[in-house]
Amino acid sequence: MNPLFQEQLQVVNVGVAAFAEAIRSAGGTAVQVEWTPPGPGDPEVARKLAGLINHPAIEAANRQAFAAYQAAQPVLQGIGLASAVVPGMGERTILHSGPPIRWERMCGPMQGAIIGAILYEGWARGHAEAAALAAGGEIEFAPCHHHGAVGPMAGVISPSMPVWIVVDREHGNRAYCNLNEGLGKVLRFGAHGPEVIERLRWMADALAPALAAALERLGRLELKPLIAQALHMGDEVHNRNVAASSLLLKRLVPALLRTDTGPAQVSAVLEFIAGNDHFFLNLSMAACKAMLDAAAQVQNSSMVTAMARNGVDFGIRLSGTGDAWFTAPAPVVDGLFFPGYSAADAAPDLGDSAITETA
Amino acid sequence: MNPLFQEQLQVVNVGVAAFAEAIRSAGGTAVQVEWTPPGPGDPEVARKLAGLINHPAIEAANRQAFAAYQAAQPVLQGIGLASAVVPGMGERTILHSGPPIRWERMCGPMQGAIIGAILYEGWARGHAEAAALAAGGEIEFAPCHHHGAVGPMAGVISPSMPVWIVVDREHGNRAYCNLNEGLGKVLRFGAHGPEVIERLRWMADALAPALAAALERLGRLELKPLIAQALHMGDEVHNRNVAASSLLLKRLVPALLRTDTGPAQVSAVLEFIAGNDHFFLNLSMAACKAMLDAAAQVQNSSMVTAMARNGVDFGIRLSGTGDAWFTAPAPVVDGLFFPGYSAADAAPDLGDSAITETA
Repeated sequence: MNPLFQEQLQVVNVGVAAFAEAIRSAGGTAVQVEWTPPGPGDPEVARKLAGLINHPAIEAANRQAFAAYQAAQPVLQGIGLASAVVPGMGERTILHSGPPIRWERMCGPMQGAIIGAILYEGWARGHAEAAALAAGGEIEFAPCHHHGAVGPMAGVISPSMPVWIVVDREHGNRAYCNLNEGLGKVLRFGAHGPEVIERLRWMADALAPALAAALERLGRLELKPLIAQALHMGDEVHNRNVAASSLLLKRLVPALLRTDTGPAQVSAVLEFIAGNDHFFLNLSMAACKAMLDAAAQVQNSSMVTAMARNGVDFGIRLSGTGDAWFTAPAPVVDGLFFPGYSAADAAPDLGDSAITETA
Repeated sequence: MNPLFQEQLQVVNVGVAAFAEAIRSAGGTAVQVEWTPPGPGDPEVARKLAGLINHPAIEAANRQAFAAYQAAQPVLQGIGLASAVVPGMGERTILHSGPPIRWERMCGPMQGAIIGAILYEGWARGHAEAAALAAGGEIEFAPCHHHGAVGPMAGVISPSMPVWIVVDREHGNRAYCNLNEGLGKVLRFGAHGPEVIERLRWMADALAPALAAALERLGRLELKPLIAQALHMGDEVHNRNVAASSLLLKRLVPALLRTDTGPAQVSAVLEFIAGNDHFFLNLSMAACKAMLDAAAQVQNSSMVTAMARNGVDFGIRLSGTGDAWFTAPAPVVDGLFFPGYSAADAAPDLGDSAITETA
């Protein structure tokens, strides 16, 4: 061992941090790996956990869940209003991203988006009235995931918003996602000024009916081949959607032009889609949700079927643990900020779009 | 050397083939490399050729030509009829792909395409009359490359055909290419039945005016950034153009919808483009032609500025040798054939599309 003491040491310390600190304080280098004994530390619990390793029932359940996920065939079925198509959507229900959270605990962007949804629905006349209504307990807040839905960032879906309807034609389950608003001041980042509300109204009144008519002409659109092609073209269909959005546009254009939609509306709709390289994101999310829901509710399966953030908590769901969420604090992402802003101004990680990474 | 005679020999023979044949006839293996001494074999010529290696004048000329090629900025300027925009296009001129070739020596697909062009122009009433006219010497055949143009496969451009107009905005030179007809029975493969002629008429009467109007709205479209993005998305913009065609469509759709083009025409035009993943090919070719023409006519430069095939000869042009072609027999491509057909039925390599590989 003598040569060891003559070399520059590179230490990786697993578990109790004091050892790494001692090395650092002595001028050495140590990488600390956070780790605690399973159990945590309770020998009885640890023994039971160890018994789960390669457990035949869990292995079989995971094979079943994963096979269902792989067999899933998400197809774009159409577009409908959330109140009409999303299961369990009450008159005053507002869905949000991530695991369950009370109004008081929500991050700024989510509260802002909910205020915007209340204004959009016409339940209040201004910001203050909307905030009071949101805090007053009359509105039912629920995760999108509890209603078969997903939403990017704040993930806010209120009854009068149009949603994509994706069906897994292998198992029959459905998934929903709102429509992408583009970049800039948009509801999903918490913006709720007049131009945001106006755009949401246009999306419900012009965009959604035009797309619904086009999809009727087009018939069910297979999403897996489109996503596969987009992946080959450099998309990861979460933050890079330029290929998928273009391929979708190419299918929508001829179909839309064969509908009775007026020329001005066609023009506005196609300009909106062509101007948004992220337009496919919400369809990608609904497709991933449909595929993962096919793997859900398999007893004993430890397969992760959802990862989602509400701006405060990061939560996951496992196939074999029903509707339970397992949460930890959501991290603050060290990203790019507008001039004058930093991570100190940022909300922690937010949105259901991690469903794409889950898939 | 003794171990050499105990091993299995793998021989590469350069030059005189008789040595390789002797080895093969003795049961050995020999790969023959075709090679003849430069000159060919004339010491005086060989000495002069050797003097060209790293010659300062040639190196300087090549740097100049290559810099011009790299500085070229091809932009899509618009669409026009060949008779109106292609320089030197006479009333009875028909352009074809590759180096110059007389009617009698042309391959079947090129003769077929020329017969189609004559029928399209209305210069003859049927196949036999068109063939007689083509053979009769009244029609001027010329390579596309002699008129700043390129054309895929047979590359036939006649006066009433619409062409893309691409301008190198750095140097002001222009390049032209016909519009892509899609797959199946099309003129560029030599087909000239009624549906081929009818499609060509529709392309001139409906497609080209609609695109011209859209391009007027759009303004000059930069082709290099579009091609760069498509390359990142897996296209090589010769035989794979799905990304470039989609990116082009995305720009054309909103522009076309802002023109006065009637809804039925808009619908037909966008359906035609959306249904053809090769639609961008002809623009890619015109862009490459414009970039390479920027490098042409530099005295002493040995840079290759064109590679093209007419179905009989494969020809190249060099920057420093003016309008001269250097030709060799075009090879027969060992490709995929329809059932019942083989390479024995195929014409040798054909088309100006090798301009993409040149670039």
